[in-house]
Amino acid sequence: MSEVISSAALLEVWQGNRRLTRRVIEAFPEKDLFEFSIGGMRPFADLAKELLGIAVPGLTEIVDGDTRPLSEDMNVHSKAELLQLWDEATEGINALWPRITPERFSERIALFGQYENSVIDSILYFIENEIHHRGQGYVYLRALGIQPPFFWER
Amino acid sequence: MSEVISSAALLEVWQGNRRLTRRVIEAFPEKDLFEFSIGGMRPFADLAKELLGIAVPGLTEIVDGDTRPLSEDMNVHSKAELLQLWDEATEGINALWPRITPERFSERIALFGQYENSVIDSILYFIENEIHHRGQGYVYLRALGIQPPFFWER
Repeated sequence: MSEVISSAALLEVWQGNRRLTRRVIEAFPEKDLFEFSIGGMRPFADLAKELLGIAVPGLTEIVDGDTRPLSEDMNVHSKAELLQLWDEATEGINALWPRITPERFSERIALFGQYENSVIDSILYFIENEIHHRGQGYVYLRALGIQPPFFWER
Repeated sequence: MSEVISSAALLEVWQGNRRLTRRVIEAFPEKDLFEFSIGGMRPFADLAKELLGIAVPGLTEIVDGDTRPLSEDMNVHSKAELLQLWDEATEGINALWPRITPERFSERIALFGQYENSVIDSILYFIENEIHHRGQGYVYLRALGIQPPFFWER
């Protein structure tokens, strides 16, 4: 079986995507970040909080094996606070990542006590979920008449 | 360097995402698939055509090395035609994939004559671009009052 992505490259895929998501957060006007939505979906700040609730807590569970419930309940009321949490998570991810041993990627876990999957598939899901929600954010920005960052910019 | 994703697993990530995108195409009413949009963005049929213009033509270039320009110009005027092209591309991808040699993934190419990148990063880009555009499609469906398929369904 040929393996095509290294652990280090996968981290860079994730952090590259997180840098783009950070630009999307920045592109929102303060009020719209927390209030604007389409079709009953959540405002982008809530989507970003979901991503924050998954990233470091999920990786911590992957590294130390302790299950904890998913929490997206964060005391965040401004773009500056959200961006600060985002940057802290960037550092947190970089610190935790090297502690995922090569064997660990193929082990099965019950993430947040409920999502049974291999570690690698859980991490791919983190990234896919982020790209998915960021795609929502692009539509919000366009609907607000704001040019989003280029998708290929990382 | 520990490698964490095999070629076969990456194909399954892509095809799992493509199955979900297919469900999103199916969820659109015929007329809205080709006409509905938000904020001046393209209707979902045009996004799907972009994905079709990338997948098999891009993989063909990766396999045989012949550069060709990107074309999203497809003679498609119904959901049934679009789904048929989608299914043909599913088969096409499955047929081309085993022809990507392990060494090929790390080689640099100028995809469609312009996007310089390694083969693995090009393929990851195909998948990320699809998730991104499908995220747009989710907002279109919600704005139309239609429940999209579950994101985690593959």
